Amino acid sequence: MVRWEPGARERLRNAALDLYATHGFEQTTAADIAQSVGLTERTFFRYFADKREVLFAGQELFQEVFVAGVAAAPDGSSALDAVSFALQAATSFFPDDRRAYSRQRNAIIVANPGLHERELLKMAWLSQGIAEALRGRGVGEPQATLAAETGVTVFGVAYRQWLAEGEERSLGTIEAEVLGEVRALSAIVR
Amino acid sequence: MVRWEPGARERLRNAALDLYATHGFEQTTAADIAQSVGLTERTFFRYFADKREVLFAGQELFQEVFVAGVAAAPDGSSALDAVSFALQAATSFFPDDRRAYSRQRNAIIVANPGLHERELLKMAWLSQGIAEALRGRGVGEPQATLAAETGVTVFGVAYRQWLAEGEERSLGTIEAEVLGEVRALSAIVR
Repeated sequence: MVRWEPGARERLRNAALDLYATHGFEQTTAADIAQSVGLTERTFFRYFADKREVLFAGQELFQEVFVAGVAAAPDGSSALDAVSFALQAATSFFPDDRRAYSRQRNAIIVANPGLHERELLKMAWLSQGIAEALRGRGVGEPQATLAAETGVTVFGVAYRQWLAEGEERSLGTIEAEVLGEVRALSAIVR
Repeated sequence: MVRWEPGARERLRNAALDLYATHGFEQTTAADIAQSVGLTERTFFRYFADKREVLFAGQELFQEVFVAGVAAAPDGSSALDAVSFALQAATSFFPDDRRAYSRQRNAIIVANPGLHERELLKMAWLSQGIAEALRGRGVGEPQATLAAETGVTVFGVAYRQWLAEGEERSLGTIEAEVLGEVRALSAIVR
């Protein structure tokens, strides 16, 4: 019989982040995480495939927000404009009250090469999802892949700036600035 | 006493690729690889940290070629021009007679998520190396990171096309075409 644990997923996730931050990711087991919030290891595995996936839960939703943004961009948008539209739509995923959590998560990931690799794979999937959505709008190749990769680059640069110590601007504001730099960078004629 | 084995590194690498391709990466051990060319497992580990690293040997040299290319770009080049110069310089690393080997390596990597993650990390390092070389030329941030990421994107798209079935153009020719698409993509004014 499976007992329903109200809020178990979120409690496990918060406990995991605290343990990874204080004891280190490698040193923390799924059992440690479960115990720290009075749950069993078995309950942990009902919510997460393994202790790494705690940090990557919600990845599908994250990607869907970008993909839906590309699809919802105004008719007649260029590939890069559709990506820009999606970047702004996806900022709903990163309100300013999430910044502290994102900073904690990021510190854990950059400290562990295996987690860093996993994060890169997540971004590669995001790029593939955006490219597919662009092809769905009739954008050809290699333009769809190039615009998608450019969007993921802009997101990555803006996101790291959003997490930087003392940064208070919203992710959307930073993204708009970085996108402007990308347009300027590539507009240079030899 | 360490016995010198002429050509051992290359024999081990070629044997590893054949075994990964025929039996699968997970199913192949370091001992299997060493045995197949009449060497011991201990000899294998003198050349490679583990069976994964066989596929990523030469990574430092690969990065150095790009970094040297950025440094050697003509004075007064824009960030993107310096990256473009480095992309052309790095094609020396991928002559057409290497295409068959690169295709075999790539097929092994895309079939295994762990290897795919490792390859993404290699490209992330490449991007960081290029960005550092650009900052060394006086390019500021975020322009250095954006130009470096754009270069790695162009390389990735061109490299996958270079590996495509039936493709016969050189990597340099394909890169020039993809770079032209990037410039066109970003030059669009809203």
